[in-house]
Amino acid sequence: MSASISIFDTTLRDGTQGEGVSLSADDKLKIAKKLDDLGVQYIEGGIPGSNSKDIEFFKRVQSLGLNAKITAFGNTRRKNTEASQDANLKSIIDSGSQAATLVGKSWDFHVYTALQTTLDENLAMIYDSISFLKQNGLEVVFDAEHFFDGYKNNPEYAVAVLRKAKDAGADWLTMCDTNGGTLPHEIYDIVSTLSSNLPQANLSIHTHNDCELAVANTLSAIQAGARQVQGTINGYGERCGNANLCSIIPTLQLKMGYDCIEPASLAQLANTARYVSEIANVHMPVNQPYVGNAAFAHKGGIHVSAILRDSRTYEHIEPELVGNKQRILVSELAGQSNILSKAQEMGLAFDPSNEQSRKVIDKIKDLEHQGYQFEAADASLELLLREANGQITELFNFESFKMLIEKNSSNSVICEAFVKLKIDGESVYTAAEGNGPVNALDNALRKALSQSFPILKEMHLSDYKVRVLDEKDATAAKVRVLIESKNVERTWTTVGVSTNVIEASWEALVDSIRYALLGQSTQNEKELNINEQHGLINH
Amino acid sequence: MSASISIFDTTLRDGTQGEGVSLSADDKLKIAKKLDDLGVQYIEGGIPGSNSKDIEFFKRVQSLGLNAKITAFGNTRRKNTEASQDANLKSIIDSGSQAATLVGKSWDFHVYTALQTTLDENLAMIYDSISFLKQNGLEVVFDAEHFFDGYKNNPEYAVAVLRKAKDAGADWLTMCDTNGGTLPHEIYDIVSTLSSNLPQANLSIHTHNDCELAVANTLSAIQAGARQVQGTINGYGERCGNANLCSIIPTLQLKMGYDCIEPASLAQLANTARYVSEIANVHMPVNQPYVGNAAFAHKGGIHVSAILRDSRTYEHIEPELVGNKQRILVSELAGQSNILSKAQEMGLAFDPSNEQSRKVIDKIKDLEHQGYQFEAADASLELLLREANGQITELFNFESFKMLIEKNSSNSVICEAFVKLKIDGESVYTAAEGNGPVNALDNALRKALSQSFPILKEMHLSDYKVRVLDEKDATAAKVRVLIESKNVERTWTTVGVSTNVIEASWEALVDSIRYALLGQSTQNEKELNINEQHGLINH
Repeated sequence: MSASISIFDTTLRDGTQGEGVSLSADDKLKIAKKLDDLGVQYIEGGIPGSNSKDIEFFKRVQSLGLNAKITAFGNTRRKNTEASQDANLKSIIDSGSQAATLVGKSWDFHVYTALQTTLDENLAMIYDSISFLKQNGLEVVFDAEHFFDGYKNNPEYAVAVLRKAKDAGADWLTMCDTNGGTLPHEIYDIVSTLSSNLPQANLSIHTHNDCELAVANTLSAIQAGARQVQGTINGYGERCGNANLCSIIPTLQLKMGYDCIEPASLAQLANTARYVSEIANVHMPVNQPYVGNAAFAHKGGIHVSAILRDSRTYEHIEPELVGNKQRILVSELAGQSNILSKAQEMGLAFDPSNEQSRKVIDKIKDLEHQGYQFEAADASLELLLREANGQITELFNFESFKMLIEKNSSNSVICEAFVKLKIDGESVYTAAEGNGPVNALDNALRKALSQSFPILKEMHLSDYKVRVLDEKDATAAKVRVLIESKNVERTWTTVGVSTNVIEASWEALVDSIRYALLGQSTQNEKELNINEQHGLINH
Repeated sequence: MSASISIFDTTLRDGTQGEGVSLSADDKLKIAKKLDDLGVQYIEGGIPGSNSKDIEFFKRVQSLGLNAKITAFGNTRRKNTEASQDANLKSIIDSGSQAATLVGKSWDFHVYTALQTTLDENLAMIYDSISFLKQNGLEVVFDAEHFFDGYKNNPEYAVAVLRKAKDAGADWLTMCDTNGGTLPHEIYDIVSTLSSNLPQANLSIHTHNDCELAVANTLSAIQAGARQVQGTINGYGERCGNANLCSIIPTLQLKMGYDCIEPASLAQLANTARYVSEIANVHMPVNQPYVGNAAFAHKGGIHVSAILRDSRTYEHIEPELVGNKQRILVSELAGQSNILSKAQEMGLAFDPSNEQSRKVIDKIKDLEHQGYQFEAADASLELLLREANGQITELFNFESFKMLIEKNSSNSVICEAFVKLKIDGESVYTAAEGNGPVNALDNALRKALSQSFPILKEMHLSDYKVRVLDEKDATAAKVRVLIESKNVERTWTTVGVSTNVIEASWEALVDSIRYALLGQSTQNEKELNINEQHGLINH
């Protein structure tokens, strides 16, 4: 019989302390939905007392109907005040979340240096704040900040803090290694002692990666009796980051026999990690354990021939268990099966043994080599596959575009785009302004097409991402542009790559519109169809 | 009395198996020199039998006169052959290196599946190969591939392999966790058993990061009695990488009391890590433990005020011990104390009680609210602070720029920029092409300025980053551009924000050049100075 471990995700709170991580309320809602699909038990959404973005998140998240408990974060009450008068505690209650995380000091040095109060007042701050939230019906997770540093310095006081929190009714007691400096064997020893001193407590562990030991420290605490893990997707967090749930969950579940999430959800792990990195616009390292693009990549020679005999020779788990896949970097065998499974997903006939299919595989590989990435840009991939299957009728032809950008000292930049297309054999020439070059191009392109294809009025661009691929070459480097588009029914993403950001954007824009027009016909074709239906044309 | 741990670096061999890591013979020689300065005991340079690049490395490295032992890597002899006739073993001897690493199988499953031979023949292969190299005067490190997987499957055989290697004269017995799937407590138990079964052996540990546990696994082995660590700088290596020496060395030395390298060399660690990442052309993650740019960066207001009282409140070690430094991120969350400490760092007088200083604080906060980020853009921040101190003379005035971008169906995009500036009261008008709009602007701007300021010829843009800030609005969203520039002495970063990517880039470009020109004067001013010196102008 295996024990259950509760997964507490703090990507949306502690994760956003990471350098370069910044999430809008919309971003947070999208990630919360994804975390809920993965099956985490707690989603810490932010600090409702701190800013309007977090207030908006807590308000809107309620309508999503998630299974996970939405958790609001805050400090214990200020020193020498009443808990019931504390603005932060009140905003936690007002947030409408089911659970709260309250952080309090457990290192005596911090009580003196940072809080500048007495050890007793700190205990009272913890007791009062937890009691107040419990009286208001919230589940309370108590985060004992700097618990291990505190324990090493003054074990009696650190334990007294946890005991006080428990007496006040805290549902979970979290031991935080806030500075990330504690070692796995120290964690094991301290948590073991605690487990026997506080046998009725639900212990939780929160670690940071300053010694590259956050995952190991979390596992040590679990082995010593903790039953909840606090961490973030991809290990985002302040300084060197928080404990990485994408490494902890599979290790606990596949190697140590604990229950964390459903096995079917575990197979969504790589996808979740990539999704969150896309939303956060943080580059995902190829060598990230379990979920990285190179985590099961084999470079050649002897390893590959052994792998082909039996993948256990150089793989510690089956990559599919975490939703990742084997990549053989030198061999044709790798990409093809991926494309095959994508084609099946799209309901396209695709036979890797015929020459046409092999050609499209080669083309995709070549594009990936140039910097295209189809993991996120499923619409661009679908267009390539349909093209190879002869399923695409091009409804317009590109002739040219020009753009004029102008700035003088007295005004802001003016962007004008001029687009020439051929639709149904006729030239259409349009001009439009925009508040940036891509916006101007988008406006001109739609102006040219929406008369013939009114369906385009229903779509709009909903997301635009630029990534510089080879940053060493500075402004002459390649850029990849991802454009997300939406209509009432669907969302799709397209990709463009070039040394020129305008050209890359243009490519992604055109693909987005081609995708929206799948299944449409031009006016000429429609007339042709009508004529056919009326029997006016003989074959 | 503290035990010594021997540091065995394999960046130049196993590290080059990492995706995106590729080193020329020249690169390898530069890195070897740097590793030697750091004070590692062994530098594994490559596989002399495999390619001409490695042959060149082993030849040329001898003239560098390094203290570290240069080590050549290879397999044990082929099955059913003579060691003395084995081409790989002979090329190890021919390489002229003092030491050799020989890798052999210790997992019975691999002997059957990969080698396709008998357990006895594998033992003979190991014994013969080591004996042959020992007879030729080399120190031998025996790498037992898949040792832990082997031990779990067939402990008698795995131990027999090590025993055989020791009997043949191997100087070090390395237990490799080749697939990276073993957990720290398993490593501890297995190595402890071995330490008592093979009391005279010098045990070495070689781990991989597939579970994000390579560092923890290495520490476990050391605690159980191993005395050598094999790893790479920045953890480069196949799939998820090798054990990261940049995390292991400081932890062993600063936290566990072992001797690895000289304390003065430890202070070169961050510099070494950055140097190797530059040579390998692999982007270094900001959040890398100990040596990353964000490893000691503080963002939140409360954290910052505690840090300013005592840095131990949120730092697990003094960053200077590993050659890194504290960074206070100037961010909306933080107050004026961040800006104050930044001004002090720059040697600027800055008094938050006077009105001028309060004005610049408000301005910076306002800019941050608009999407500017000064965390990375220290040069733009310095310009703002110097401006507020009246320390900046503008050497040129912007009048206008225009840009023409054109694409037709037959060619790629053409970008032309036209820039009009005023320098010394005279209009300068230049035109230039580029392979993107920013590149064209950069070229035109330099063309306009470099005649008056030849110092600009020494600088170039080294990095360019674009981030879309409010992605919901898609192409009408704000973008933030960060530009990194370099000259022989320094690197600096500037920022620009606009709804228009061209305008944002222009801002960052202009700031970069203004920063490069700090302390310069125009021709008119120079003449003025000369005239003043000659007493030709009366005040």
